[in-house]
Amino acid sequence: MMAAPINPSDINRIEGVYPVRPPLPAAVGGYEGVGQVHALGPAVTARLSPGDWVIPSPPSFGTWQTYITKHENVWHKVRSDVPMEYAATITVNPLTALRMLQDFVKLNPGDAIVQNGATSIVGQCVIQLAKVHGIHTINIIRDRPGSEEAKNKLKQLGADEVFTETQLDMKNVKSLLGALPEPALGFNCVGGNAASLILKLLKQGGTMVTYGGMSKRPVTVPTSYFIFKDLSLRGFWLQKWLNSDKTEDCRRMIDYLLGLVHEGKLKYEMESISFGEFSLALEKALGKHGSQPKQVIKF
Amino acid sequence: MMAAPINPSDINRIEGVYPVRPPLPAAVGGYEGVGQVHALGPAVTARLSPGDWVIPSPPSFGTWQTYITKHENVWHKVRSDVPMEYAATITVNPLTALRMLQDFVKLNPGDAIVQNGATSIVGQCVIQLAKVHGIHTINIIRDRPGSEEAKNKLKQLGADEVFTETQLDMKNVKSLLGALPEPALGFNCVGGNAASLILKLLKQGGTMVTYGGMSKRPVTVPTSYFIFKDLSLRGFWLQKWLNSDKTEDCRRMIDYLLGLVHEGKLKYEMESISFGEFSLALEKALGKHGSQPKQVIKF
Repeated sequence: MMAAPINPSDINRIEGVYPVRPPLPAAVGGYEGVGQVHALGPAVTARLSPGDWVIPSPPSFGTWQTYITKHENVWHKVRSDVPMEYAATITVNPLTALRMLQDFVKLNPGDAIVQNGATSIVGQCVIQLAKVHGIHTINIIRDRPGSEEAKNKLKQLGADEVFTETQLDMKNVKSLLGALPEPALGFNCVGGNAASLILKLLKQGGTMVTYGGMSKRPVTVPTSYFIFKDLSLRGFWLQKWLNSDKTEDCRRMIDYLLGLVHEGKLKYEMESISFGEFSLALEKALGKHGSQPKQVIKF
Repeated sequence: MMAAPINPSDINRIEGVYPVRPPLPAAVGGYEGVGQVHALGPAVTARLSPGDWVIPSPPSFGTWQTYITKHENVWHKVRSDVPMEYAATITVNPLTALRMLQDFVKLNPGDAIVQNGATSIVGQCVIQLAKVHGIHTINIIRDRPGSEEAKNKLKQLGADEVFTETQLDMKNVKSLLGALPEPALGFNCVGGNAASLILKLLKQGGTMVTYGGMSKRPVTVPTSYFIFKDLSLRGFWLQKWLNSDKTEDCRRMIDYLLGLVHEGKLKYEMESISFGEFSLALEKALGKHGSQPKQVIKF
């Protein structure tokens, strides 16, 4: 392996929050990452050569180790002309953003979507992937020191509007949208008030997709939103999507996403850290040093 | 007009809760009901004769009056060999039950659904229409004196299981289902805890449809229900469905439902009351005399 990130879902797996648990006590952590082919077994028929960059696709357990021996079917060869941190992280977050934009509501250029947790890597990917397809994004971030800087960063990525939760704490919230159309689709990774704001902003008949619950608060919905506003509430979990025999689709989309990275149309902040500093990286990923970029371990 | 019910939605319209409001001050109440053709205008081409029973279909405002003159297209001739109270009430509640059973999840004989507010007329219709199609029903009623009697009434209509909310206030709630399959579809007309119980009972990937909010409490959903349990939450409002150019479908289903009434497969409790006692009927419909059957005014 060359590089592998510490994703929140890795932490959840370790903590036992996820319904799918690795076998203990001999489990190796890590779910995605990029490696370089070191050697091929004599029966390998895949078009792989030593030196090729490969990722486990669909992702699978055990990327937090230096050498891995697995069946050739596990590995997908990826381009090596992008920073290895992107190859290491291209599946879990960017693919989630891509699937959520495509799987729930048919969007056309000029349409708008709304999301909370917009500074997360999924959020950043949503903004950029939407922009590639001519979709406007309305973004909600939490109130905090430095929120102006966060807004500017997201606007540089292509965000049309960025609001803090407090800014949206008003009656006629749609007046803030200006010339943007009311969003037909919303992404919620926070819950609580930040989810209620999405429900408020969605248009009649709109859909909210929940893919995370960072605030640990539930989603609360007045019944009138279902009956009169005809909203649909759904959920998305990449691991379930990947389990449903989507290997070919997945690999095609990985290639597409790494192509966008290569063209400079998809970027997000990461911090590389050597394996020797693993425990510091883990502390940062756990939020023990304040807000930090995604930690990518290099082996 | 011969008979017209007082539906909760009529009250809501009067109170201005509904997004669609009748023109004031000259509005006439009532949204469904049955009448008898008194006379035809010279240009009428519909196959109607004086004496025929007719209902406004799709339903329309103003059924709380003795004589109505409206365009022939408004009226649908119905069979006159059923009690007039059924012809008067067949659209709003029974059609809601029928549409909700058909429009959201493909159900097969042997499948199960779950609902709260099961003693309501929609609830009673859901039980009987599900039974006609071989679908099992799991029913939730509120805790109250006489809940045993209410349970027995629903079981006589064909309910497989009936629980009070308190009975379901336990951890391993699915152990109560016995040999019944986990329900794939749930109907919520209450909100609050009664909606949470439906979410708990639904199977992985299930759908809850909200069509009312009797408790005036919102629906509260832990984010894990969306992400890991993959639940979908939707809404149903008959008036919107009827507005979408469904006149022919609507009339076909009315005939089907009145056929079931005629065969004795669809029944529900109503109380007939003469127009002279209108104010008493209204008080009863508003719940001022405790729990009462649906009030049907006879003209």
